Amino acid sequence: MHGVGLGPGAQDLLSVRADKLVRGARHVAYFRKEGRAGRARRIVDGMLRADAVELPLEYPVTTEIPLGDPRYNMALSAFYADSIARLRAVVEAGEDVVVLCEGDPFFYGSFMHLYTRLQGVAPVCVVPGITGMSGAWTVSGTPITWGDDMLTVLMATLPEEELARRIRATDALVVMKVGRNLPKLCRAVAAAGREDEAWLVEYATMPEQKVTRLRDADKATPYFSILLIHGQGRRP
Amino acid sequence: MHGVGLGPGAQDLLSVRADKLVRGARHVAYFRKEGRAGRARRIVDGMLRADAVELPLEYPVTTEIPLGDPRYNMALSAFYADSIARLRAVVEAGEDVVVLCEGDPFFYGSFMHLYTRLQGVAPVCVVPGITGMSGAWTVSGTPITWGDDMLTVLMATLPEEELARRIRATDALVVMKVGRNLPKLCRAVAAAGREDEAWLVEYATMPEQKVTRLRDADKATPYFSILLIHGQGRRP
Ligand SMILES: C[S@@+](CC[C@H](N)C(=O)[O-])C[C@H]1O[C@@H](n2cnc3c(N)ncnc32)[C@H](O)[C@@H]1O
Ligand SMILES: C[S@@+](CC[C@H](N)C(=O)[O-])C[C@H]1O[C@@H](n2cnc3c(N)ncnc32)[C@H](O)[C@@H]1O
Repeated sequence: MHGVGLGPGAQDLLSVRADKLVRGARHVAYFRKEGRAGRARRIVDGMLRADAVELPLEYPVTTEIPLGDPRYNMALSAFYADSIARLRAVVEAGEDVVVLCEGDPFFYGSFMHLYTRLQGVAPVCVVPGITGMSGAWTVSGTPITWGDDMLTVLMATLPEEELARRIRATDALVVMKVGRNLPKLCRAVAAAGREDEAWLVEYATMPEQKVTRLRDADKATPYFSILLIHGQGRRP
Repeated sequence: MHGVGLGPGAQDLLSVRADKLVRGARHVAYFRKEGRAGRARRIVDGMLRADAVELPLEYPVTTEIPLGDPRYNMALSAFYADSIARLRAVVEAGEDVVVLCEGDPFFYGSFMHLYTRLQGVAPVCVVPGITGMSGAWTVSGTPITWGDDMLTVLMATLPEEELARRIRATDALVVMKVGRNLPKLCRAVAAAGREDEAWLVEYATMPEQKVTRLRDADKATPYFSILLIHGQGRRP
C-alpha cells in the first residue's frame, strides 16, 4: 500500500514519484465528506487510469457531536476500522492501493490514522509531498524564515489564549485549519499585537488561490486557508 | 529567472514542474563551498542538458571570521552582490537561469538572499519543494503532528538556553543545521527532559540516509541532519 503526498494543489507540484504512482494505480483510495468531491481526488482529476477502481472513504457526519464528546471519537474510530477493512480486502487480494493525501501525508494528515492501524498488518510506503504551508508562503511572494528565525505551526482549533501566547512568542508563524476559527484567530493575532504582519492565503497554488493581508481579509475564509507571519531574521 | 526547490535529496522527489525546468535549463546556477561538489548540484546529477551552462556560486571562506564580526556580513554581502551580477548578465542577454535550491527555496534557503536582491531587477519565479524535514519525518516512519499538536522549528545555531526553553514548550519539534552544534543541542534536549523522544535523521532520502535515536547517535553528525521529536496529539 502507498500513502502518496499530492502537494498543495497544482497538479505539476506532485513529485515525479507520486505522479508515477497515481497514474499507474489500479486502486485509488481517498477521504471525502459525504456528497463532496474530495479535495485530494480533485487534485488528480484527469490523471487516473481509465480502469482505476476508486475507493472513496466517506467521513461520518459528526457536526452535531461536540469534539470533547466520547461519541465523536467513537464515530471516527468506527470509520477508520471500516476504512481499514476495505483497504485490507484489496491488499489481501494481492493488489496495491494508492491512498491520496493532500500536502505531505505525515503532517497533520488523516492518512496517519490508517497508517498506524496498518502497522504489522500490511506494508505501507509513504511518499512525502510539498506541504500546503510551502505552497502558501511561496505564493505569498516572501520567504518564511531567515537565519535563526524560529517557526511555529499552530492549529486554529486551539483555545484563543494559547494561540495569542504562542503567536506573541514566535518569529515566523503558520496557522492551519483556519476556516470557521477565523474570528477567534483574528482576536488572538490582535492580542499578540501582530495584525500588521499577518497574511491570509486561501487555496494556495489552486485555481481559486487568494492572498490578502489579514486586515483586508473577508469575514469568512474556507477550510483550505493558512495564516502566515513571515520571519524577519538575520540577512546579510 | 527560476528558483527551483529540489526536495530533500532523492531525484524522483523533485516536483514534475521542477523536473521539467531542470531538464530543460540552458543555464543552471547553484551555491557550493569552494572545492566542493555542492549538494543541490549533486541532486540533479545526470539530469542536465548536455549543453547546459553551469554557474557555480562559491561561498567565500568565512570560517576564520566569527559570526558576530561585521566582516562576516560584509564578506557575504559582497558574495551575493557578485552572484547577482553574474545572474543579471545571463538574464539581460535574454536567457532564463534555473537556480537549484535544496528542499523548499523559501524555507531557510540561501536563494532567498538572491531573490530579495532581484526584486524590481528581474522577474523571479519560485517553485516550492518538499522540505528536508518532510523527508526526515517520512523516513523516520512516524507521523510528526496529530490533532492540535504544535510544531516548533528551530536552528541548532541558537543559544543553548533558548533551545532548551523552546524544546520544553512544544509538542512536536524539528531542529535543523545540527552538524557541529550536536553537543550543545544534546545538552538542551536533556535539559528539557526529552532525550528519550528525540531522533536524529542524517541525509534523509539520500543514499547515505541514517535514522537513529538521539541517545544511540554518534558524537558527530553532518550538516545535513535533522533532529525530530514526534508529536503525540489526539488520535481517535
Ligand atoms: C488536515 S490539514 C492537512 C495538511 C496537509 N497534510 C499538508 O501537508 O499541508 C488541512 C489544512 O491544511 C491547510 N492547507 C493545505 N493545503 C492548503 C492550500 N493549498 N492552501 C491553503 N491551505 C492549505 C489548511 O489550513 C487546511 O485547513
Ligand atoms: C540552509 S537549510 C536549507 C533547508 C531547505 N531549504 C529545506 O527546505 O529543507 C539546511 C539544513 O536543512 C536540513 N536538511 C535539508 N535537507 C535535509 C535532508 N535531506 N536530510 C537531513 N537534513 C536536511 C539540515 O538540517 C541542514 O542543516
